[in-house]
Amino acid sequence: MAAPGPELTVSGLQRRLAEFAAARDWQQYHTPKNLVAALTVEAGELLEIFQWLTPEQAADVMSDERAAHRVRDEVADVLAYLFQLCTVLEVDPLRALAEKIERNESRFPVP
Amino acid sequence: MAAPGPELTVSGLQRRLAEFAAARDWQQYHTPKNLVAALTVEAGELLEIFQWLTPEQAADVMSDERAAHRVRDEVADVLAYLFQLCTVLEVDPLRALAEKIERNESRFPVP
Amino acid sequence: MAAPGPELTVSGLQRRLAEFAAARDWQQYHTPKNLVAALTVEAGELLEIFQWLTPEQAADVMSDERAAHRVRDEVADVLAYLFQLCTVLEVDPLRALAEKIERNESRFPVP
Amino acid sequence: MAAPGPELTVSGLQRRLAEFAAARDWQQYHTPKNLVAALTVEAGELLEIFQWLTPEQAADVMSDERAAHRVRDEVADVLAYLFQLCTVLEVDPLRALAEKIERNESRFPVP
Repeated sequence: MAAPGPELTVSGLQRRLAEFAAARDWQQYHTPKNLVAALTVEAGELLEIFQWLTPEQAADVMSDERAAHRVRDEVADVLAYLFQLCTVLEVDPLRALAEKIERNESRFPVP
Repeated sequence: MAAPGPELTVSGLQRRLAEFAAARDWQQYHTPKNLVAALTVEAGELLEIFQWLTPEQAADVMSDERAAHRVRDEVADVLAYLFQLCTVLEVDPLRALAEKIERNESRFPVP
Repeated sequence: MAAPGPELTVSGLQRRLAEFAAARDWQQYHTPKNLVAALTVEAGELLEIFQWLTPEQAADVMSDERAAHRVRDEVADVLAYLFQLCTVLEVDPLRALAEKIERNESRFPVP
Repeated sequence: MAAPGPELTVSGLQRRLAEFAAARDWQQYHTPKNLVAALTVEAGELLEIFQWLTPEQAADVMSDERAAHRVRDEVADVLAYLFQLCTVLEVDPLRALAEKIERNESRFPVP
């Protein structure tokens, strides 16, 4: 009988990230300022994959398995630091996004 | 009776972001390369909030309501572009993160 | 008789930046880590100008006087933080670049 | 008799960068949008050196020869892309900075 997989929810992943850091005594590095810096660094690493591509090549990036793996890896890194930042600052990421979409719906009315 | 709120799930929010863009004819701008650039720009805007703060001031950023609002706003912007990128590239963000955590558990064994 | 303009050299501009910061008591904020964060933020603001442009629109950005002013303004901000970082870390920026070009000439020989 | 060193001026280095790219047929990649993306990526790599350091460790970064080399290397990369962007957009980087300092002197008068 297969073990149940880890729960794929935002709060479940936030918990796993917190446990991962705690087990390695890395929480001391995870100050808000450091986590935001790390998030920006990882966003840059994601951008690096695309920097010299034409729009057409960029649209086709996932058809190359190595590039596709790199994209998923860097997306994961950005998300990991963003979720850890949200844990430390007690921000609910999905709620923050839902509220932002609502503000944008007022700010940019459909023509 | 209150109307049911929008569903706070990753795929629900990805759908709302896609509808928001489609209603404004903005999908033409949402190429992978542009979305990654926008994600990096928003990460920079999040970093801007923290750039001159001491580690102590940064740890206390949410106690100022204006700064807290700005943090939630920029967290939402980063997440919005990351989720839209994942939609366009057909990457499952939570699965990508779960798989990365598993790779990191092998790569950085607990001492 | 016109006053002589400020000297347009890297070291002359580094001196003016240092005097500007000292006169406002801003040196306390200009730690290496903060200056690198600010440099990254300004690079993001420069990227923001280009994020939704097609390659063709981006190539033509200087023909719009407002966009051209914004570009020069953000280029200046990136350079300002880079030069201030170099001052604080005692790095000679032009020498660092010349040495990097030499390393790259060995690393990427002309075919 | 030693050969004369390459001239350490901004325009001299911009010329060497242009010759370096031309000899490798890389100019096709050096569109303004790509150069700005690359500049942001390199700023992120510079930030990566500092991301987990305390302010004290960051202030001491040049006392470690390996870290010092990495800092000079990344400073050079940021400068290389900034200068190449300026060449392509016909922006004079030192003049842009001098004019920005003048605007800032009006905007932030000394108390």
